[in-house]
Amino acid sequence: MQRDWWKWGDPKEIKHINDYPKLKTLVEERWKTHLREDFFPPKKFELPQLSEKKKEQIRDIFASIYPKKISFSDDDRLFVSLGKSYYDVIRIFNGNGFISPDVVISPTTHEEIQYILTQASANNVQIIPFGGGTNVVGALSLDNLSGRTEIKCTLDLRKYKRLIHIDEEHLSATFEAGILGPELENILNAKGYTLGHFPQSFEYSTLGGWIVTRGAGQESTYYGKIEDLVEHIKVATPVGTLESNPFTHDASGINVLPFFVGSEGTLGVVTEITVKIKKLPKNYRWIVGLFPTFQDGTNYLKTLAQAGVKPSVVRLSDANETNLFSKMSSSEEHPGLVNDLKKEAQKLILQWKNLSTPCVLIMRFPQGEISVSSQVIFAKELVDKHKGMLAPTTIGDKWADNRFKLPYLRDTLVEHSIYIDTMETLVHWKDVSKLHQALTRELNKSVAFNKNKGIFLAHVSHIYPNAACMYFTLITPMLKGREIEQWQELKDLVTNTIMQHNGSVSHHHSVGLDHQKWYKKYTDSLALEVLKSVKNKLDPKGIMNPGKLFS
Amino acid sequence: MQRDWWKWGDPKEIKHINDYPKLKTLVEERWKTHLREDFFPPKKFELPQLSEKKKEQIRDIFASIYPKKISFSDDDRLFVSLGKSYYDVIRIFNGNGFISPDVVISPTTHEEIQYILTQASANNVQIIPFGGGTNVVGALSLDNLSGRTEIKCTLDLRKYKRLIHIDEEHLSATFEAGILGPELENILNAKGYTLGHFPQSFEYSTLGGWIVTRGAGQESTYYGKIEDLVEHIKVATPVGTLESNPFTHDASGINVLPFFVGSEGTLGVVTEITVKIKKLPKNYRWIVGLFPTFQDGTNYLKTLAQAGVKPSVVRLSDANETNLFSKMSSSEEHPGLVNDLKKEAQKLILQWKNLSTPCVLIMRFPQGEISVSSQVIFAKELVDKHKGMLAPTTIGDKWADNRFKLPYLRDTLVEHSIYIDTMETLVHWKDVSKLHQALTRELNKSVAFNKNKGIFLAHVSHIYPNAACMYFTLITPMLKGREIEQWQELKDLVTNTIMQHNGSVSHHHSVGLDHQKWYKKYTDSLALEVLKSVKNKLDPKGIMNPGKLFS
Repeated sequence: MQRDWWKWGDPKEIKHINDYPKLKTLVEERWKTHLREDFFPPKKFELPQLSEKKKEQIRDIFASIYPKKISFSDDDRLFVSLGKSYYDVIRIFNGNGFISPDVVISPTTHEEIQYILTQASANNVQIIPFGGGTNVVGALSLDNLSGRTEIKCTLDLRKYKRLIHIDEEHLSATFEAGILGPELENILNAKGYTLGHFPQSFEYSTLGGWIVTRGAGQESTYYGKIEDLVEHIKVATPVGTLESNPFTHDASGINVLPFFVGSEGTLGVVTEITVKIKKLPKNYRWIVGLFPTFQDGTNYLKTLAQAGVKPSVVRLSDANETNLFSKMSSSEEHPGLVNDLKKEAQKLILQWKNLSTPCVLIMRFPQGEISVSSQVIFAKELVDKHKGMLAPTTIGDKWADNRFKLPYLRDTLVEHSIYIDTMETLVHWKDVSKLHQALTRELNKSVAFNKNKGIFLAHVSHIYPNAACMYFTLITPMLKGREIEQWQELKDLVTNTIMQHNGSVSHHHSVGLDHQKWYKKYTDSLALEVLKSVKNKLDPKGIMNPGKLFS
Repeated sequence: MQRDWWKWGDPKEIKHINDYPKLKTLVEERWKTHLREDFFPPKKFELPQLSEKKKEQIRDIFASIYPKKISFSDDDRLFVSLGKSYYDVIRIFNGNGFISPDVVISPTTHEEIQYILTQASANNVQIIPFGGGTNVVGALSLDNLSGRTEIKCTLDLRKYKRLIHIDEEHLSATFEAGILGPELENILNAKGYTLGHFPQSFEYSTLGGWIVTRGAGQESTYYGKIEDLVEHIKVATPVGTLESNPFTHDASGINVLPFFVGSEGTLGVVTEITVKIKKLPKNYRWIVGLFPTFQDGTNYLKTLAQAGVKPSVVRLSDANETNLFSKMSSSEEHPGLVNDLKKEAQKLILQWKNLSTPCVLIMRFPQGEISVSSQVIFAKELVDKHKGMLAPTTIGDKWADNRFKLPYLRDTLVEHSIYIDTMETLVHWKDVSKLHQALTRELNKSVAFNKNKGIFLAHVSHIYPNAACMYFTLITPMLKGREIEQWQELKDLVTNTIMQHNGSVSHHHSVGLDHQKWYKKYTDSLALEVLKSVKNKLDPKGIMNPGKLFS
């Protein structure tokens, strides 16, 4: 499969706006416009060409892997220049505002990666590790490089992706970092196992990327975030290779494993990764519920989380999101996410206590050797106590069919000059509804968002006894010619409001460049100095993903 | 309650060897001896007296908390000189071989602790943080201090122990580090909650101590090890105070919280700690099983752990331990741990497939709002498949009644010139039986152990999908006059054998001084350098618990 370099994924999956007729009608009516494709990236990008002298210099530095693993081609350089955020896409469409590396190196062994970092450190080459390239907060951007080095190298890990070992006796598996989600799951599934890590980027993101960004899959409430799923790592750094302790749960001093979880490529390259795997579930139990308000739904989820109930998928949409998703069916033949919610449940809803704008909750329970019936029964009985009602579970399967498809819609909307961005955070339960209300209020006041009645969607997607991950989607017409300013203004508005409600900088998107100003305030200043001492030890020349975390 | 300074706990709980008549008979027959109390610590210890000049120097350094928080008394200095290991006790009985601090400081606020560390760092005072004083691997010892400082100060945290805040909405509670297990649980229990952390030292160990040693409670398989139970920490260090990020499960860069878990007082003092609490269970379900061999029992537990079954208490004793514990009843009126195993189950056992030397397994399942029946049913049905049989569960309650009492017996045995030491590790499932067999074999060959037919007991006490914690008890007559050499020889023998089977340096006892030589080999050398860079940043003068982890 050949991916269009700036678009999300499989070209065959790309949809036209006409594939979402109800969404199209809704948006056209709301914005009194006729949607048309009117925004395109340049046909060709003019990359700064490397001098022969610089190429020779690079060849000399990385002599033992030249030419096989090294590319100066424009296509290769362009592909790794940015991640997949709205800000990235806008800059691509504008044809400027971003920097491409001078060279792309694609190693296939740990030893090669160690060699590259050693040589790079000795020769002041900046290294930007690149996994699946799906980061949405600027972690892959070359914008903020220090002036100290003159060669910019992206380390493309997509060919470094073998299974090293499955240990079925101890339910663990060791992979190379560049393996993609489906490749990893296919290997495990064939033997009856799963890692259980399914971020929305699953199809195009890598195991190594999940770890260095501290990602979470859509089923993390049951399987755990990536930091819960890693047992051991090997890391190549500019000063050599290190390994974490063999076990995560012992008392043998301080384990350095967590130093690299969330390190965003600034300390080295996590190369060989041993993950904890689980037996594949035999089947799933679904629960779908409707709640009169978002607050009712979050109260319900808090009670569940604190009682120890662990669904894998948890997705409580606010009224806006519930309403919009029910209109997003691509066609009668291909019903969308909650299309049938209206058909099947409408009668019930109407009968029910004025539930005119419900919030839908989708939950899935993996059923393994131990019955999950007691959890499912408890969860079902609790719905009524929280003013909710059970709804048909068929939309669960449809959600599962479409779980990785939403990023395609983003590309389609951008081509129609529509701004669409997503942001997320982890907040204490007490702040979930407050933050939701505050964002609604602040966005209403924002000209950049609300001049054309922007659409604000929210859902809770991961639950803990103390907190919930909230995920926000903003959609509004682009301010033409001011796309970047619009993006920054809304990013600031949302993130500042998150911070005012003591939310985390990010629950699973990571820090990157886009969150840097908030990250610096969020993180204790002496803790930052401690992290810098680790950075200085492992990367004394500051070549690893410069300008990120340690700018 | 006034504790005897070198003994384990409450003087009222101290037992005489005659309280264990069957054990006494067994031991006397085995060792062809008459047990008598023949080994005592000196009536009085002569501590090196401080010069007036040195006292004045100390007063000047810590002027703002003098005299209220500062003690030069011999009793106070003696009490904090050592932990509670066999090696510690032997040196106390010998009356020499250990060092006492010059001064004991007992702060009661974070600010005082920060002041003490700041002043100590500026004046080269060595600081040994002291929580409950129950460490059994030399973490509190002053033996290995560097020569760089001239004042040795133990920071006694036992008065720093307030509840700061219970957050019932988010199931968390913030305490000062010096709070003891029962104090903490009483506060939580009164509101309907528990932390669920019950190490054998529970009654005399502190929250802060649990964290810096990376401890595990007897119920950690369900509640988690201490690293799973902490949400946030505040730390006083020689260069200032820092805090970890507010959440453990997000994507806001690298969280420094794990840097201090297992830091053993070498980086600073963890002061304010927010823990994740749970609702108290409504009741418990017990399962007691008997297995023909230790291997059968461990196979059973591996299957349970990998199926996701989570008992809180898990304790599979080998045949030796099962046999000995059934003989340890204190009297007919006060039946001991598994006294009634014989009475109630004997008939069944005898009927059953040649189960003459069974291995007993005790498991407890906390029952909360969600039924644990499906787990209990699964676990019970599986016993038969692993050649085991269910036994009466009454011994479960008796185990619970006696769960914190065994350390008292150690003191009693030492007074009768009996060596008794415990060691533990985390090993992969495939190595559990191999390690058990290898230790049996090696100990048989050891003159120090087997000349008088030493007793070797083992159990599995914490289970994970990939590994199990094994806990070993060694009992044999002391080699009089060579007590230290005997201890070291057996420590070396057991730990070397553990290392040969890829076991962890420690699962919950920590590194201390006693494990240092293995720790250095166990930990990756570049990882150690990274840890040193953190140490140098936070403790540039090297005053924090010198000689530990970073010797």
